[in-house]
Amino acid sequence: MRSLDSGLLYASNWDPSQSVLVNIGNHFDLKTSVFQAPRRGIYSFSFHVVKVYNRQTIQVNLMQNDYPVISAFAGDQDVTREAASNGVLLMVEREDRVYLKLERGTLMGGWKYSTFSGFLVFPL
Amino acid sequence: MRSLDSGLLYASNWDPSQSVLVNIGNHFDLKTSVFQAPRRGIYSFSFHVVKVYNRQTIQVNLMQNDYPVISAFAGDQDVTREAASNGVLLMVEREDRVYLKLERGTLMGGWKYSTFSGFLVFPL
Amino acid sequence: MRSLDSGLLYASNWDPSQSVLVNIGNHFDLKTSVFQAPRRGIYSFSFHVVKVYNRQTIQVNLMQNDYPVISAFAGDQDVTREAASNGVLLMVEREDRVYLKLERGTLMGGWKYSTFSGFLVFPL
Repeated sequence: MRSLDSGLLYASNWDPSQSVLVNIGNHFDLKTSVFQAPRRGIYSFSFHVVKVYNRQTIQVNLMQNDYPVISAFAGDQDVTREAASNGVLLMVEREDRVYLKLERGTLMGGWKYSTFSGFLVFPL
Repeated sequence: MRSLDSGLLYASNWDPSQSVLVNIGNHFDLKTSVFQAPRRGIYSFSFHVVKVYNRQTIQVNLMQNDYPVISAFAGDQDVTREAASNGVLLMVEREDRVYLKLERGTLMGGWKYSTFSGFLVFPL
Repeated sequence: MRSLDSGLLYASNWDPSQSVLVNIGNHFDLKTSVFQAPRRGIYSFSFHVVKVYNRQTIQVNLMQNDYPVISAFAGDQDVTREAASNGVLLMVEREDRVYLKLERGTLMGGWKYSTFSGFLVFPL
């Protein structure tokens, strides 16, 4: 069984009062939306960033410290809501910062229903 | 190591005879497609609901008991198959029910290749 | 805590020198892109195969040995990058081979930003 300081995070905004559903250990900073790892290990991260209708393509990067690890895209111009999704296993050092960055485009139309999740798969 | 009553679930219909690939503990009810948690803990859930060509937008909700937790959308009118996907970490109480609900649109054209998966990340 | 031979894999090509970020135990063969399970258990696999603009629909299968388990599709003709994504929990026997197969279409325009990840949820 994994310990409770595993570094769980989750963000959504279905309902602002529920915008973070799970945050065991409080390693996900609600103000900055940055996750800071409580320990070294392999983590699983996944995200679904939903853009509302606009004519721009978005590119979302998953960042580890200042380095972009993976990207996802949403570029259809004819649909109301579309998600830029991806997921990854990462080797994370203690105190590494993991977060999402909007590399291209805007979310001016809103990003309701977006999620960002992660958990420790096992410590190293 | 996590115990085998962790509450695994998975549904697809690549092949009807294989429509549930993994169901450790049988906490996923094949008739109702509802997962009932065998214990309190943090669970990871993800889904990919594939709609076949039709002119409707679908919205799929992940439900915890009677509450919608996250949503996903598929609304492109010009593609044959498109997935409404999302994923989440959830704090689940023992006997909570977790399931998918088609909030908007229809899957009349079919939903082959759809998946719904979950597992206990750690017990609380 | 799970042991380090859990069978982790991850592939991306954000940067060719970083094309495999995590490969604990080296069960993911970099030449063939095949994962061979080090032990029997329940594994979680997910993939996001990103196609670059072309006019073809792609179908990507997740294969267990010679059997297709799940599929994902990307078929929009008007967007620059689009992902065929899906994920699954699988009962895997020791030495089973798990890999992606492009069942339909081509990735001639490139597949940069694609990912394929998996980890042992628990051994059986």
